[in-house]
Formats: sequence, C-alpha cells, structure tokens
Amino acid sequence: MADKYEYEYFNVTFPREYVAHVEINRPEKMNAFIENMWLNLSAIFRRLSHDPNVRAVVLSGAGERAFTAGLDVKAASQGMLTRDTADPARAANAIRRHILEFQDCITAVEKCEKPVIAVLHSISYGLALDLSLACDIRLCARNTSFSVKEVDIGLAADIGTLSRLPRAVASASWVKDICLTARVFPASEALQFGLVSQVLDSKTLAVEKGLETAALIAGKSPVAVVGTKEILNYSRDRTVEDGLKYTSVWNAAMIQTQDVKDAMLSGIEKRKPVFSKL
Amino acid sequence: MADKYEYEYFNVTFPREYVAHVEINRPEKMNAFIENMWLNLSAIFRRLSHDPNVRAVVLSGAGERAFTAGLDVKAASQGMLTRDTADPARAANAIRRHILEFQDCITAVEKCEKPVIAVLHSISYGLALDLSLACDIRLCARNTSFSVKEVDIGLAADIGTLSRLPRAVASASWVKDICLTARVFPASEALQFGLVSQVLDSKTLAVEKGLETAALIAGKSPVAVVGTKEILNYSRDRTVEDGLKYTSVWNAAMIQTQDVKDAMLSGIEKRKPVFSKL
Amino acid sequence: MADKYEYEYFNVTFPREYVAHVEINRPEKMNAFIENMWLNLSAIFRRLSHDPNVRAVVLSGAGERAFTAGLDVKAASQGMLTRDTADPARAANAIRRHILEFQDCITAVEKCEKPVIAVLHSISYGLALDLSLACDIRLCARNTSFSVKEVDIGLAADIGTLSRLPRAVASASWVKDICLTARVFPASEALQFGLVSQVLDSKTLAVEKGLETAALIAGKSPVAVVGTKEILNYSRDRTVEDGLKYTSVWNAAMIQTQDVKDAMLSGIEKRKPVFSKL
Amino acid sequence: MADKYEYEYFNVTFPREYVAHVEINRPEKMNAFIENMWLNLSAIFRRLSHDPNVRAVVLSGAGERAFTAGLDVKAASQGMLTRDTADPARAANAIRRHILEFQDCITAVEKCEKPVIAVLHSISYGLALDLSLACDIRLCARNTSFSVKEVDIGLAADIGTLSRLPRAVASASWVKDICLTARVFPASEALQFGLVSQVLDSKTLAVEKGLETAALIAGKSPVAVVGTKEILNYSRDRTVEDGLKYTSVWNAAMIQTQDVKDAMLSGIEKRKPVFSKL
Amino acid sequence: MADKYEYEYFNVTFPREYVAHVEINRPEKMNAFIENMWLNLSAIFRRLSHDPNVRAVVLSGAGERAFTAGLDVKAASQGMLTRDTADPARAANAIRRHILEFQDCITAVEKCEKPVIAVLHSISYGLALDLSLACDIRLCARNTSFSVKEVDIGLAADIGTLSRLPRAVASASWVKDICLTARVFPASEALQFGLVSQVLDSKTLAVEKGLETAALIAGKSPVAVVGTKEILNYSRDRTVEDGLKYTSVWNAAMIQTQDVKDAMLSGIEKRKPVFSKL
Amino acid sequence: MADKYEYEYFNVTFPREYVAHVEINRPEKMNAFIENMWLNLSAIFRRLSHDPNVRAVVLSGAGERAFTAGLDVKAASQGMLTRDTADPARAANAIRRHILEFQDCITAVEKCEKPVIAVLHSISYGLALDLSLACDIRLCARNTSFSVKEVDIGLAADIGTLSRLPRAVASASWVKDICLTARVFPASEALQFGLVSQVLDSKTLAVEKGLETAALIAGKSPVAVVGTKEILNYSRDRTVEDGLKYTSVWNAAMIQTQDVKDAMLSGIEKRKPVFSKL
Repeated sequence: MADKYEYEYFNVTFPREYVAHVEINRPEKMNAFIENMWLNLSAIFRRLSHDPNVRAVVLSGAGERAFTAGLDVKAASQGMLTRDTADPARAANAIRRHILEFQDCITAVEKCEKPVIAVLHSISYGLALDLSLACDIRLCARNTSFSVKEVDIGLAADIGTLSRLPRAVASASWVKDICLTARVFPASEALQFGLVSQVLDSKTLAVEKGLETAALIAGKSPVAVVGTKEILNYSRDRTVEDGLKYTSVWNAAMIQTQDVKDAMLSGIEKRKPVFSKL
Repeated sequence: MADKYEYEYFNVTFPREYVAHVEINRPEKMNAFIENMWLNLSAIFRRLSHDPNVRAVVLSGAGERAFTAGLDVKAASQGMLTRDTADPARAANAIRRHILEFQDCITAVEKCEKPVIAVLHSISYGLALDLSLACDIRLCARNTSFSVKEVDIGLAADIGTLSRLPRAVASASWVKDICLTARVFPASEALQFGLVSQVLDSKTLAVEKGLETAALIAGKSPVAVVGTKEILNYSRDRTVEDGLKYTSVWNAAMIQTQDVKDAMLSGIEKRKPVFSKL
Repeated sequence: MADKYEYEYFNVTFPREYVAHVEINRPEKMNAFIENMWLNLSAIFRRLSHDPNVRAVVLSGAGERAFTAGLDVKAASQGMLTRDTADPARAANAIRRHILEFQDCITAVEKCEKPVIAVLHSISYGLALDLSLACDIRLCARNTSFSVKEVDIGLAADIGTLSRLPRAVASASWVKDICLTARVFPASEALQFGLVSQVLDSKTLAVEKGLETAALIAGKSPVAVVGTKEILNYSRDRTVEDGLKYTSVWNAAMIQTQDVKDAMLSGIEKRKPVFSKL
Repeated sequence: MADKYEYEYFNVTFPREYVAHVEINRPEKMNAFIENMWLNLSAIFRRLSHDPNVRAVVLSGAGERAFTAGLDVKAASQGMLTRDTADPARAANAIRRHILEFQDCITAVEKCEKPVIAVLHSISYGLALDLSLACDIRLCARNTSFSVKEVDIGLAADIGTLSRLPRAVASASWVKDICLTARVFPASEALQFGLVSQVLDSKTLAVEKGLETAALIAGKSPVAVVGTKEILNYSRDRTVEDGLKYTSVWNAAMIQTQDVKDAMLSGIEKRKPVFSKL
Repeated sequence: MADKYEYEYFNVTFPREYVAHVEINRPEKMNAFIENMWLNLSAIFRRLSHDPNVRAVVLSGAGERAFTAGLDVKAASQGMLTRDTADPARAANAIRRHILEFQDCITAVEKCEKPVIAVLHSISYGLALDLSLACDIRLCARNTSFSVKEVDIGLAADIGTLSRLPRAVASASWVKDICLTARVFPASEALQFGLVSQVLDSKTLAVEKGLETAALIAGKSPVAVVGTKEILNYSRDRTVEDGLKYTSVWNAAMIQTQDVKDAMLSGIEKRKPVFSKL
Repeated sequence: MADKYEYEYFNVTFPREYVAHVEINRPEKMNAFIENMWLNLSAIFRRLSHDPNVRAVVLSGAGERAFTAGLDVKAASQGMLTRDTADPARAANAIRRHILEFQDCITAVEKCEKPVIAVLHSISYGLALDLSLACDIRLCARNTSFSVKEVDIGLAADIGTLSRLPRAVASASWVKDICLTARVFPASEALQFGLVSQVLDSKTLAVEKGLETAALIAGKSPVAVVGTKEILNYSRDRTVEDGLKYTSVWNAAMIQTQDVKDAMLSGIEKRKPVFSKL
C-alpha cells in the first residue's frame, strides 16, 4: 500500500491496486482554486510520479456541483489589485514570475510519469480546462458544462489551455470559437470535437469508468506505460523524425526489461503477468 | 463609427458595434480572384488589424453562387504563359517572388490582430480553402461544396492550404484524401472532420450566425481577445513549453489592463462591461 | 507496363494504369512480420517511389483473417532473448541500431514519393498501426479490429505509432486511451476519431475503393500529386511560416511544368489530360 | 544602369557594375536614426532586392564621425514620453506594433536577395549593431568604436542585435559581456571575436575594400549568389537535416540555369563569364 | 543589504552594491561536488534570481588549487555501484530521474534572472565546464587548466556541457577535440576559441575583474539587464524570426519602465542614474 | 584485426589499434570525386560505423597535390548537360533525387557512430569542405588552400557546406565572405576562424597528428565516445532543453556500462583500462 497523502483541499485514496484517486475537495466553493491548492496539487503529482505503488491516477472533483469552477476570482483579484509598484515593467516582472510558477504547478500533472485520467462533471470552467488538458485521458459525465472562461474576465487563458488545446482536439475552428466566445458548451460537443473521448451517464459512472481504465493501465508493465506516455508527449511537439530518434534511444534501455519476457510468457501461458515496481 | 473602406471587389460594412463585414464582391465571376483582389484583401485586413473601431470581422462572398471559385484561372494563366525568360532558374526566381507575395496577402488575414470568421456557401474551391484557413473560425451554409482544387490544374496548392490544413482538422487521412483527389465534398463532411465548426441551413442564416458570433466576441475585452488569438496561433506551431513561456511574457503586460477590473466588477454587478478602444 | 516486382511475402501487381497494389502475403501467419518482410517492404517502396510507371499505391493484406497481426512475436523474441552481451550499454547500442533500421524500413513508405493508400481489414494490431500511419490515406473494412498492442508485450511502440498518431487524429485523449490500454477498438471508432477516413462494408469493397481512389489520383498530374504529398508531410511537422517558405521554393520549379498548361487546356476542352511520366 | 534612387537621408550610387552603394547620410547628427530613416532604408532594400541591375550592395555612413550613433534618442523619447493611454496593456499593444514595424524595416536588409556588405567606422553604437548584423559581411575601419548601447538607456536591444548576435560570433561569453555592460570596444576586439571579418586602416580603405568585395561577388552568377545567401540564412536557424532538404529543393530549379554551363565553359576557355540579369 | 545566505560548502557575500559573490567552498577536496552541493547551489541561485538586492552575481571557487575538480567521483561511484535493481529498464528509469534532477540544479544558474559571471582558476575539470557554461560570462586566471573530463571515466558528459558548448564557442572542430579526447588545455586556448572572453594574470585579479564587471552591470537598469539576459538565452536556441517576436512582446511591457526616462535624463544631466529595485 | 575493406579509389588501413585510416585515392586527378567515389565513401563509413574493431577514423587524401579538388566537374557536367526531359519540373525532380542521394552519402560520415578526423592538405576545394564539415575534427597542413568553390561554377553548394558551416565556425561575416566570393584562403585563416582547430607544418605531420588523436580517442571507453559524438551532434541543432532531455535518456542506459567501473578502477590503480568491443 502507498504512504499516506494528506493535503488540504485534496483527498488522495488508493481504491484499486496501483491506482491513486485524487479528488479536488473544496465543494462548498465549487472546487474553485486558491493559490495553496495549486501548490498542493503540484506537490501531490510530483510525489505520485515517483511513487512505486502508483501506476495510474484518476483526478476528479468532490461534490455534485462542479469539477471546478476555475480560479477563485475573488481571492485572485485581491492579489491582483494590490500590487506594490507603479512601474509597469516591475509589475510585469512580478506577474511573469507568478504565471510561470502557476504554470509549473499545472505542468506537474503532465510531467507525472504515470498516466492521469481526468473525470469531469457539472461546472468545468476556466482552470478546469487548463488542468484537464495537462492530463492524459479526459472522460466526463453527461451533465458537464464546459467553458474556456478567461476572456470573460478580461484576459487570455495563461495556465495552459491556449498552448495545449490546439494539439488536443479535432478542429482549429472550434478551438477558436470556444476560446474567443467563452460560451458554455455541453458534453456532447466536447465529445464531437474530441476534447473528451468518452461521455458517461452520470458522475458516478464516469468516476467508475475512470477507475476501471486506470486499473486496466495499472495491470500493464509500468515500464511500457511510462514510456508510452513520455514518447507520446515528446512526439506531440516535434517532427516525426525527432520522435523516432527519441523513441529509439528510450527503448534501447527499456526493451531490456524483464517485463517483456514476463509479458510474452504470460501471453503464451494465458495468465496475468505480475510486474515488479517502478 | 469606423472610417470608410472603399476597395474594388470588396464591400466593407460595419453592421454591428465593433464588427466589420468584408464581402468578396465579384459575383458575376463567382468571386474568382485576380491579382488586384488579393492585394486589396491584404490592404483591408492590415487596416482592420489596427482599427480601434473593429474587434471582430466576418468574411463572406457576395451572391448566391459562390464564396469563391478560387483563382481566376484565365487571368492567372495569361501571366503564367508569358514569361520573358527561357532560363528555368530565372523563371523560378520570378515565380518564387510571386508566390511569396501572394502568400503574404493571404497571411495578412491570419496576422490581423482581430478574430476573423469565414462564412462559406455554394462553390468554395481552391483559394476558398487557402483563404478560409487563414481565418480563425469557419462556418458554412448547408449548400456549400468544397474542393482543394489545385491538383486538377496541375499544381500543389501553394497559398496556404497545404501548410495550414494539417493543423486545422481531425484526420490526416482525410486531409490527404481531399488534397490528392481534388474531389468535391459537402458541408456535412467538412463538419464531420472539423474543417468547419458549424453548418447552417442557408447562406443567410450562416452570415447571420457569423455576425452574431462576431458581436459576441466584440463584446469582450479587446485586450483579452487579441491575446487569445495571438497565443493560439503561436502555440499551434510550437512546443507546449514554448507556448507557455510566450504566454507568460504576453500576459505580464496584458493582465495589467483596466479591463480585468472592469470585467470582474461588471460580473459582480451583473451588467455588461464597457471596454475602451484598442 | 511496370517491371516485375518479385518479393517473398509480398504480391505486387498493377491492376490499373499507373496504380500498384502491394499485398502483404503471409496469410497462414496472419501476415505477421518477420525481419525479412520489413526489409522487403522497404525495398519495394524505395523502388515504387522512383518508378515512372507508378503514380499511386494501395497496400493491403492477403487472406481474410488479418491485415497484419503485427510483429511475429515468436521470431522477435528469439532475437531478443539471445543477446551476446551482458553489458546493458552495449546491449542498448545494439538495440538502438536495430530499432533505427526497422524504423527506416517503415519510413520508406512515408518517403515514397507517390501516395500510398492503406486498406485495413480484420486483425490490425501493433505493426498494422505503425505501418498504416506511414501511409497517406487509411480506409478499412467494417470488420477491422484495431489495437495498439505494444504495452501488452511490455514495451512502448517504437516503429512509428507513438510519433505519428498524435498528428494524425482528432483527439489527444483518445490517442492516450488506445495507446495506454492496448484495448481492441472497431472500425466505427477509428472513423469517429479520424484514424481512417472511410469504412466500407467488406474487405473486397474496401480494396476496390482503395484502387478506385488510387486510380483517381493516378489520373492527375504526377508533378502536382508528388508535390502535394511532400508539402503536406513537410508542413505537418513545422510552423506555418516554414511550410509556406518551403512551398514557395518547391513550386518555383514545379509550376513551370507542361502539366499546368495541359491540365488547363483539357479543362477548357473538357477532355481527360494525358501527362508524361515522372 | 540602374534607375534613380532618391531618398532623404540616404545616398544611393552605383560605383561599379552591378554594385549599389547605400550611404546613411545625416552626418551632422552622426547619422542617428529617426523614424523616417528606417522606413526609407526598408524601401531602398526592398527595391534593391528585385533590381536586376544590382548584384551586391555596400552599406556605409557618410562623414568621418560615425557609421551611426544609433537611434536619435531625443526624437525617440518624445514619441515614447507622450503616450495617449494610461492603460499599460493598451500601451503595450501600441509599443509592440511599433517594435514589429521597426524590426521589419531592419529585417528588409537581411531579406534583400542580394548580399549586403556593411562597412563601419568611428562611432558605431546601438542601431549600428542591429543594422550591420542584418547585413551579410561586416568590415570596419581601425578607428571604429562599437557599443551595444541599449542597456545604458534602460532597455534591452529590440531591433535585432540580441537575436542575431548569438549566431554571428565566436563566444557566448563575449556576447553577454558586451550586451550586459554596454562597454565600448575597438575594432581589434570585433575582429578577435568574429563580429567583423576584416579591419582596414581607414574608412576610405574599408569602403574601398567593401566595394571591391561587392564587385567580386557581382562578377559571379547571380543565381548562385542569391541561392548561397538564402540557404546560409535558412540553415543558420534550423537543423542540418532541414538545411539539406531545403537546399535540395532550391537547387532542383536553380541548377537548371544556363549560368552553370556558361561558368564551366568560361573556366575551360579561361575567360570571364557574362551572366544575364536576375 | 541582502538577507543572510547560509549554506554548507558555499560562501555568499555582497562585496559591492547589488553584487553577490558565491564561492564554492570545499577547498580541501578541490571543491569537488557531492550531491548536497548541487542541491544547495540550486537553492542559492533560485533565491538570488528573485532577490531585489541582487543585480549581478560572481561565481568562483575557494582556495588556490581548483575552481572545482568536478564531481566527487568516489562519492558518486558509491551511489552508482549500489543500485537495488537488476532490471536494466528500472535502473535506467532511476538514473534518468537522477540526471534530470542534477541537470535542473545546474540549469538554475542559467535561469537565474540576474547575470552570473564565472571566474575560473587552477583545476577546472568536468563539472567546472557544465557549471560555468550555465553562467553568462566566463573569465579565468592564467593558471587555469580545463578539461571536459567525462570520457575518461567512461561516460558522456550529461549535466550540460555537451548541450551548451556547441553554442558557446568558436569552432565545432575544437569542441569535438576537447570533448572526445578529454585532454587538459590552458587558459590561452580557452581564450583563443572563445570559451572565456578574458584571461587575467592571477586568481586575485580575475576575481577582482569579475566583481568589477558585476558592479558595472549592477549600475545599469535592472529591467534592461534582466531583459537582455533573457532575450539572449531565448534567441540562442531559436530562429531569428522567433527571437524578434519574443523580443517585441517582452519589450512591450518593459519599455514602459520609469528606468528609460531616468536613464535618458541622467545621460543628459551627466549623472549616474538611480534605479528602483526589481 | 578488422576485416578487409577493398574499395576502388579508397585505401582503408588500420595503422593503430582500433583506428581506421581512410585515404581518398585518385591522386592523378587531384582526388576529384566521381559518382562512384561518393557511393563507395558512404559504403565505407556505414561499415566503419558498426565495425567493433574501429573506434576512431582518420580521413585524408593520397598524394601531395590535393586533399580533393572537389567534384570532377568534367564528369559531372556530362551528366548535367544530357537530361532526357525538356520539362523543367521533371528535370527538377530528377535533380532533387540526385542531390538527396549525394547528400546522404556525405552525411554517412556524420552519422558514422565513431569520431572522424579530417586531415586536409594542399588543394581543398568545394567538396573538400562539404566532406570535412561532415567530419568531427578538422586538422590541416600549413600548405592547405581552401575554397568554397561552388559559386564559381554557377551554383550554391548543395552537399552540406552551406548547412553545416554556419554552426561550425566563429564568424557569420567570414562564412558569408568565403561562400559568396569563392576566394582561396590559407590555413592560417582557417585556424583564425575555427574551421580547423590545428595547423601542422606538413601533410606528414598533420596525418601523424590525426592518427595520434584518433589513437588517443580509441583508448577511451567506446561507449563514452560514441555517446559524446551523438549528443554533441544532436545538441548542435536543438534547444538546450531538448539537448538535456535527450542526454538524460541516452545516459540512462549508457551509464550502466561496465566501462565506468573499469575506468574508475583503472584511474585509482593508475593503469590503462581495457574496454570490450562495441
């Protein structure tokens, strides 16, 4: 069993073998994020990344009302409105540092070596997109309402949506539509354009599907799974030639794993292989 | 109100507050393009880009028969057939200069700081694709027939389709199919593969939807909208890391805008915010 | 007529003018690949690439049971299990050389100047994806079952799937889902997410559709077709600016072709143009 | 002979066959740049780029006191100090547009198809570096004093020095040293670290050497020269693989030139070849 | 005055206004690095990066015998020789995590917003190169002996030398020579090929020169200095076009600084400007 | 001992343990290259790359008169002048194929896993640069005369010089100077700008120095040497971040080598280590 993960605003449990479930837990505020939350989120995922007892992760939101309503604007605006400098350049430098730190916290999810499955439901606005786009697989409940909310509060989304969305979905036209209008769109539209790959009838079923998928992945060789995530992320951003080159170097070490032999033998013997920890 | 825009072959009107409507206007020739038209198109969009009275643009074609039938091949072929050099290298240099200038004119639409919504209908061949792919959002009427026509006249599309299409839609297989066969395909297929993000029942409804979407965008903070377009375009072509870095520098200045405070306050007070010009 | 192509495990025929049909022919082993096969595959496509009698290629699998079941794991594992070195670094170097050579063989299909249409049916696992993703257009029979099988044998797919898939389809979430779970998915799902662009009712109809599409392409100017494939492949991996620049240089020579005049004249005279060989 | 080039603040002459000499001509202000000057500079080089009577260009400064002292700070500061907006985001957008336009003007020198030789002397500060780094070859007189002056007026050089210098010279340590300290350095140091490739004893000799080199280049095939500049610029910024690929496409057209045959024949016949205009 | 920086193995002092001096302090072991040292190094530079009392940093080694002899091989080999896994893939994953963490610590020097001047002397082997190449300016004493030592202990340098050196110096041939032979080379050769930009007669003079240069930089606008470092680092790795674009966005905010007006006014009034903290 | 290498126009010998010496051997024609020679060159280097008896290679030219005078222009021009097509596009395609194949042959030297040391002397024109720039280290005799000759025969160098030179030397200005003027320059200038890293007094001494350097490299761990070459080549073309990432994956396997332990132990025991073959 994995060690205890105790963090304010997050429940971390281990409902299946090698599967962690991270639940955003501030339901009375629709799971809106304050600074401490993204710092904790980052800490959790950095730790899961190297935890040998974890092979796949599910991320969902507590309560019925929201995956997350996004940034806690009231809290954020207080910080924003009380800068201690009148010089626009010094203010800009302070803001840039702040954005980079915030981005790094969300990127910790993408950098987590183990696959992360986001399960969205109900209100999923603003940071809900930034955050779930840093995950590997996105499922949602039929009642999910999505919005890239940022232009409605006067700014361009800066924690990852605008950088990750164009690579993640089916239609550049649709990306521009939802980002420029901030309109709310339903699960069916998210599925149609590939933002999510599956819609389930309720939050409960969606979380269950997420855990099931995580368990399926956790049953595979962790060496193979970690490599698959890493190479897909690397290749997304680079030429095919560079992707192939990186793959060849990666697998030069990884194919030497005992797991290949174990997996092949299990296949022949028609039994479930057991892989050692990573 | 915006200044007068008078250009041959284009109607430029301002049907909603902060919304420009650019109409290709050579309906008797199915809006086919001659050189003067793309020079004018470029001039119009360079001007709209910095026009403080414009926050979103709709681009459509006059008449019922075509958004545009593409390049006016007769006019083009006259230029093409009468080179004044027998040296293939000198001819190549002249052609390269010509292509680069033509590409620049179409790219002016992509570089326009304000979002551009293409509304296609009926015949939309060849340059119709080059042009609408340089726009941000693509809507179409149900009667639209599309074709990447170039291979039918013996050449590879060189004004942008082949560079922009692979990033814009859902299926590499479909991209190759339509570009290599030059076959005509309907609105439903364009929607299925994400080339357009919405199909309307008629040209009138499609233009109306375009104007409505433009008005919706024009009601947002222009600082937020311009940044969202720019960062999405930047990120489309680069690694996620580079996208995030660029975003942090962009927003370091832009978040200092008064618009954020105005938008937040309006949200609290449940009224429509008013943003100053950009 | 084209020269004789005689290769073990592959049937190469010329069922239409300028169309080659390459059939993987090891049906008794479900067309599973042994090393000699990918070496032959590479040789065939390098030759087709420059063969003036070929303008489009169809790739399919012999027999009813499989396009290909993937790597012949039994043969592969023998090679894998009998390394002659105990030093992990020297083993890694040998493996890296092997992967690079194998990748090069599959990339020969992508580098083939002429378009390649993959027609999949029945079992299409593992290498079936690597291989068909190096093709330009993917069609399949309704009975096709797909799987990115590699994690099931303990490794990350290294012959191209992980590098090419993220650029080829509609949904990053779906890419991660199928690559991390190795689950089998049907033709309808492949179509929904754009992996294939068309599903036909049977293998026979799918092959027929492939040949028909190939014949359609083969009727176009080969100069235009080769350029379209090359520029699409180039642009897929680079910025739009770089794509446009490359296009301008490419077409500087190619637009000088006689084919443009022939195609235009045929258009006016409403007859099928005849293009000389490339 | 070439057409008349008449531009305020610039003398454009044609002292050798196919050689243009552009002289910055505001000596009473140490050739400091005001906005009109960079607009003119851009116009001149866009025109020289396509002028068939020009095959190489020399750029120098009039008078004895300076190549250029850089931006006319007094003029610039007036523009800078009188912005008409209090919103830092709107100010930022106006500044960004201004910088991009200014950069484009200097980049026109780099984009000029024909090689440009900068000849520096005496005071060569700030913009002197931005400008000469956009040229192809840099020579200087022994009395030149250089400075990357910008940090001394409170800003990071933004018209090209910081982007071009790291690729142009021998030592990253030296680049940081001169850019971060704004110290004045002599011709000998510019030569030692490769910023210039030759130092001449006086301005007169340096200009003479520039013209001689330009004449030497102007005697070569213009097809070969234009291609050499273009491919070197392209390759500077990209992988070797991409450089090679671009070269192969470029030369596919360019090697067909009559110039190759003329040059070879002249070599055999030991006479100076005559090339037709480009 | 800056806060107290107390770290084992490092002396951090503030010998000039806004100048920090970081001294590697394990002279009895020739300043060889153990894991705790690079963790501390990273902590120090992350803190200096945001410390408003610091505008430039000097990095040198305590004692006469070495800047640093590199990694403490004895300590490193103990870690290396006692892996707790026999599986080469799991070992590889553990090693990769370790290298990435070590690289990040050294990269903290490059990411420090404020310029860092390395002053080398005597033995400067292995990690001495990795570390000083992450600095901005490199000076050395005449008695310095350099070596890219790694191939002598059976491995390719992996903490940054091989990635940063090709961009930092004058000759690809020399880079390969010193990296492949691991030969010791003197200060004169380091200067000849641009690895250092200045050689001083003794360690004392070199440190003095480092502090003087740091003080010179610290007297400039910190907004200008931070921007100059950032843009040079960004541009080193990207195309000129991308460098220019990034610069325009960066300066859109930064030119709004009060420092520009202060610097200009001081220039006119011929007095030293005073800039507020960053 | 290594197997026999017998190739027309090349002498391949093994003068030191693990060192191969490849000599271009057509001295009666000043080692000018005909097509068969570059095909052979490629075959030789592909074989050396994987030959376990080879750890370093020296490349020089037979006879006193030339390293190589470049392409055998007479032979080349015959091919060039007798194209069998009048269509400039079809000619372009044939030329492009030819250039790509020629480039691949020269790139085989760069891709050779083992380091290659070029030793130049006397006439070293045209292809001499393309070829030696694909090598890792460049030495020359004092009597060497260099020229990037291509513009003199009417074309832009297309076999690698223009892509590799800008990354290899100290001064962009000098690169443009020698490429645009085709002037002959001496060994001292090649050293000054870093094209070669050492000049020896005679060809004999230069070859001797080359063999000595090769022997020095051949005495190191082949795992370390191969990795050092590969990572330097990779990093030359990419961002520092990408270089570091690739290095971490590469070394994850390679550090597991027995060579590290052997090298460390030998260091402690002050004896020469013996490494097993790669």
